[in-house]
Amino acid sequence: MRLNQLSLKISQWFNTEAPLSDVVISSRIRLARNLAGHKFLCRCDDAEKQEILNILKETILSLDQLGDIFFIDISHGSDVERDLLVERQLISRNLAAGIGPRGAVIAGNELFTAQINEEDHLRLSTLAPGLNLDKCWQRINAIDDAVSRKVKYAFSSKYGFLTACPTNLGTGIRVSVMLHLPALKMTEQLKQLFESAKDMNLTVRGLFGEGTEAVGDFFQISNQVTLGICEEKTVEQFMSLIIPKIVEYERLARDKLLAKDTTILDDRISRALAVLKNAKLISSHEAMFLLSNLRMGINMGRIKEISIDTINELFLLTQPAHLQINKGRSLDAEQRDILRAETLRAKLN
Amino acid sequence: MRLNQLSLKISQWFNTEAPLSDVVISSRIRLARNLAGHKFLCRCDDAEKQEILNILKETILSLDQLGDIFFIDISHGSDVERDLLVERQLISRNLAAGIGPRGAVIAGNELFTAQINEEDHLRLSTLAPGLNLDKCWQRINAIDDAVSRKVKYAFSSKYGFLTACPTNLGTGIRVSVMLHLPALKMTEQLKQLFESAKDMNLTVRGLFGEGTEAVGDFFQISNQVTLGICEEKTVEQFMSLIIPKIVEYERLARDKLLAKDTTILDDRISRALAVLKNAKLISSHEAMFLLSNLRMGINMGRIKEISIDTINELFLLTQPAHLQINKGRSLDAEQRDILRAETLRAKLN
Repeated sequence: MRLNQLSLKISQWFNTEAPLSDVVISSRIRLARNLAGHKFLCRCDDAEKQEILNILKETILSLDQLGDIFFIDISHGSDVERDLLVERQLISRNLAAGIGPRGAVIAGNELFTAQINEEDHLRLSTLAPGLNLDKCWQRINAIDDAVSRKVKYAFSSKYGFLTACPTNLGTGIRVSVMLHLPALKMTEQLKQLFESAKDMNLTVRGLFGEGTEAVGDFFQISNQVTLGICEEKTVEQFMSLIIPKIVEYERLARDKLLAKDTTILDDRISRALAVLKNAKLISSHEAMFLLSNLRMGINMGRIKEISIDTINELFLLTQPAHLQINKGRSLDAEQRDILRAETLRAKLN
Repeated sequence: MRLNQLSLKISQWFNTEAPLSDVVISSRIRLARNLAGHKFLCRCDDAEKQEILNILKETILSLDQLGDIFFIDISHGSDVERDLLVERQLISRNLAAGIGPRGAVIAGNELFTAQINEEDHLRLSTLAPGLNLDKCWQRINAIDDAVSRKVKYAFSSKYGFLTACPTNLGTGIRVSVMLHLPALKMTEQLKQLFESAKDMNLTVRGLFGEGTEAVGDFFQISNQVTLGICEEKTVEQFMSLIIPKIVEYERLARDKLLAKDTTILDDRISRALAVLKNAKLISSHEAMFLLSNLRMGINMGRIKEISIDTINELFLLTQPAHLQINKGRSLDAEQRDILRAETLRAKLN
């Protein structure tokens, strides 16, 4: 793999100047596409997978508009290298854990990836910091158009884009926004929010997407419906209705905490900082949880001496694969817990 | 109540120079006695309870050998004053929560109390820091003899001293030792120890005696048998067999932690200190637990800058009634949690 093309530091999509970035971490749009004249992957042998991989890899690498990009062969390389890409949200757990020929074209700034032979032949994604789905949509739409001029997509005039799983049939779009909702969690309003989300045909997931638990008050909200609604309408609903409303609720909850429960809030933040600065062993899960509390503390003006950039960097650097790649060798769980604690102490003290 | 006779600081029985005080906090012997010619308390009306109280109060106060002592009328005074005496282990929860005329004669150094109208008419106790049951026994035996020269105890030549509950019948003695066993807890050997204790007819209880949970790795071990074994034999078993064996196990577990799991140990200690120094709200239960970890850290040479005396003082000062008496007013749970955290930060920072 060519992991040296990644800085292993803070990601572009952790930009603290971005719109609503006190609550919205990042925006992402993904399109699912398949090539006409090829079977869906569940029916493909390795030879056909390799053929699809070759076609799509060359196609994407040949596009003019993508700037600095590189290809990573996911079927080769170690588990820890694959995990690193998952931790940086560049590829899905599915692609990492898959079998047979598969790969990803990744932009050096980490704001675009094309996963090849994940669940569909091609999954394009664009990312942006904060609430920035318009930009993601313009960019991915242009890339999708450019790809479609070079290859023929599996498309039905009745159903739209044909996808391996019927839940993606139609537009094949998934719009998702990663949110930091510590105050709604502290004030126990999340259940309510998630029920409303369900009523609106939205899905709520943890930090690493499908099948993952929410860690450290981070949640991904995404659309479920890909049939009978155009892409622009889906994006528009997120941009002007759904996300601004959730941001408003989270900010209200923060204001209420500041007005009424300052001691509870400061206790939470102060303990988080104390433990992060002093632990000798710390799990990934606990670190995320405590860093989430610090992030809340900084965004609410209760901590001045630490920047959001430091928190964002630590989110990545303390993940298992990041620790091991940075250390240059494989580490067992206890060794990782020790190194994670050292990393946190060094950055925060 | 005459609580001003208590310093409200560290207790005499928290003496760090005492034998085996790295593991044994304190030793205590209690004798249960009843007056001949009076009903057991469950059958007494208030008039008879008052009569018993008067007789025993005068008797104890008139003894020459007790030094500085004072009487506290438990039926008067507030709940918080009664709780303060419980927190200092001067009276039982039973006596505090009882009804009708009752009281306690307490030594100024807190190493002797006579509870009147608890479960029995009279319960004498002597305390000593560390493992010091010989001294407790000599002292309480002399006091008991002196009392028996002034009043007539309910005594049967067949059964020995008659007591309200048959579990105390015979000698009426309870020998108990308070132990700090953090390493046996961390290495998960407590269950085993408690099973052996059960086989030896011993009872294991939490910090505040009967019916209380173990808090912060503190345990009281006491005898169950009061029939068919003389007092000296019971004391001797504790002094030369039971307690030295437990101390040996705890020390072995500490040595093993130091040799093999230093990081886990230092993590525990370092987090405890960090949270105690930084929390803005802390419950009594959590404070005890963390102070227990600090105590372990000091006794194992991992913390140098804090003394055991400070820990012992904080154990008392952070209890609910101590906080309220020191503040001079009643506090709700959240106010106590705030004041407890302030007290800890002030002493430890």
